[in-house]
Amino acid sequence: MSADEATARARVEASFAKQSVMETIGARLLSVAPGAVEIGLEITPRVSQQHGFVHAGIVATIADSAAGYAGLTLMPEGRGVLTAEFKINLMAPASGERLVARGRVVKSGRLLTIAQAEVEAIEGERTRTVALLTATLVAVENRQGVVD
Amino acid sequence: MSADEATARARVEASFAKQSVMETIGARLLSVAPGAVEIGLEITPRVSQQHGFVHAGIVATIADSAAGYAGLTLMPEGRGVLTAEFKINLMAPASGERLVARGRVVKSGRLLTIAQAEVEAIEGERTRTVALLTATLVAVENRQGVVD
Amino acid sequence: MSADEATARARVEASFAKQSVMETIGARLLSVAPGAVEIGLEITPRVSQQHGFVHAGIVATIADSAAGYAGLTLMPEGRGVLTAEFKINLMAPASGERLVARGRVVKSGRLLTIAQAEVEAIEGERTRTVALLTATLVAVENRQGVVD
Amino acid sequence: MSADEATARARVEASFAKQSVMETIGARLLSVAPGAVEIGLEITPRVSQQHGFVHAGIVATIADSAAGYAGLTLMPEGRGVLTAEFKINLMAPASGERLVARGRVVKSGRLLTIAQAEVEAIEGERTRTVALLTATLVAVENRQGVVD
Repeated sequence: MSADEATARARVEASFAKQSVMETIGARLLSVAPGAVEIGLEITPRVSQQHGFVHAGIVATIADSAAGYAGLTLMPEGRGVLTAEFKINLMAPASGERLVARGRVVKSGRLLTIAQAEVEAIEGERTRTVALLTATLVAVENRQGVVD
Repeated sequence: MSADEATARARVEASFAKQSVMETIGARLLSVAPGAVEIGLEITPRVSQQHGFVHAGIVATIADSAAGYAGLTLMPEGRGVLTAEFKINLMAPASGERLVARGRVVKSGRLLTIAQAEVEAIEGERTRTVALLTATLVAVENRQGVVD
Repeated sequence: MSADEATARARVEASFAKQSVMETIGARLLSVAPGAVEIGLEITPRVSQQHGFVHAGIVATIADSAAGYAGLTLMPEGRGVLTAEFKINLMAPASGERLVARGRVVKSGRLLTIAQAEVEAIEGERTRTVALLTATLVAVENRQGVVD
Repeated sequence: MSADEATARARVEASFAKQSVMETIGARLLSVAPGAVEIGLEITPRVSQQHGFVHAGIVATIADSAAGYAGLTLMPEGRGVLTAEFKINLMAPASGERLVARGRVVKSGRLLTIAQAEVEAIEGERTRTVALLTATLVAVENRQGVVD
């Protein structure tokens, strides 16, 4: 692991650990590299909607964090990352054993960063892409309590 | 309450009760009328992101369900509602005592329905709009397990 | 007309006159008020897609400008307005005699502004809503050539 | 060229030729393959907004058509393609000599298709990605005048 990778990893791990919602839904950080972050979610009844699939908003929760943290890895120190907006297409019902959201930066800017995340559902040997998210992230500076 | 309102309410209540994610995050159904649904969320640490605000994905979870159930109230019996996609703008940090997501139908079609939801954060006397979601919903027919 | 209205109108008119694309597609500025702008488009074959409807991208062009200029009316002098992203739902085929895009500000921020535009198609006495756009606008400062 | 490629190409060419807006803005079809379509646009004042860049709505026009036609290549005969919604991030000002929109299918369904398009701006040897669009397409059946 390079120094850059180690720094990115430590930064995202520290912030992720503060996201108590991740423990609530059963998500965890799988991998961090500069510009790319993966988050996994065990599929259990506690995240399901009325038909037994993972709720679209929970799919969005891990996808948004994967995209957002991918963006954070490329932001200067002292900044915090906030999502200004995201759009998600739910392409197939999110069911199976677990989900993996793979976030990556599309365009990193001084102020705004564009990042995407794909979410895959895994069941045994079978992997299906179930969602695609695109987010606009803001690198916040000098705001009390918003540093990652 | 009119017969239409009673039917819409019973239908949404029955489906909402199956969304176990709502219990996980602490959300509940506040009101149902034809074309309009409200969902409330107590703000507690279990739904927070790293800065202590409600995670964008959880804001999206209640907003998506409020919009989706607003759409469901206008769909013929025997259909199920699925979200094809949504887009959410996070306009201000979601903090305070509780959130209310107000969903309403913009355009109801045979196949596709467009619905929106505004999310307000409430703290004492103060109410702020923190998010705006627009969703495309599909009225699913004849799919095993997808009836609301 | 108040002083604020006169200033907003002059500012938007001056910028709109530089958008040569508006002449190309046959659009014109209908009204300007603080936080609200309307743009009209005559429906002619030059803006049509393959089925004879106005192309979704042209519907988006007037909707984006209506939303963007609505945002501009609330930005401090010396700023320019750029669209960071927009999302548009096409709810019905855009056909008839003319379109009107009505833009309004949802949330005006120092850096980012959220605005929406509804597009109506008019044919004789009949008016239908055909599209709904939500945009994130950036108030650009100190960038060469980007002042409105 | 395979038979599939020849069929896809003929189908898209025939439909594109009916989009008179493409002639209005100066766009043309560059390439067609199953699931992938490219459209080019010469950058001239007739498509510019107030700062001299290509208007976001015109960038969206070629991106939407590239995505939509990519989707059409995978739809059964007798269907027409309509855009239900799209979302576009404008990542950099669209300037230079010409734009190329590259559309590709992300997920092809019986009813709904998800497609994306990237738009590049080309100036001499230099190529920059200026926009990213995600669209939800509907395969319309049995609607008068809507066949591609």
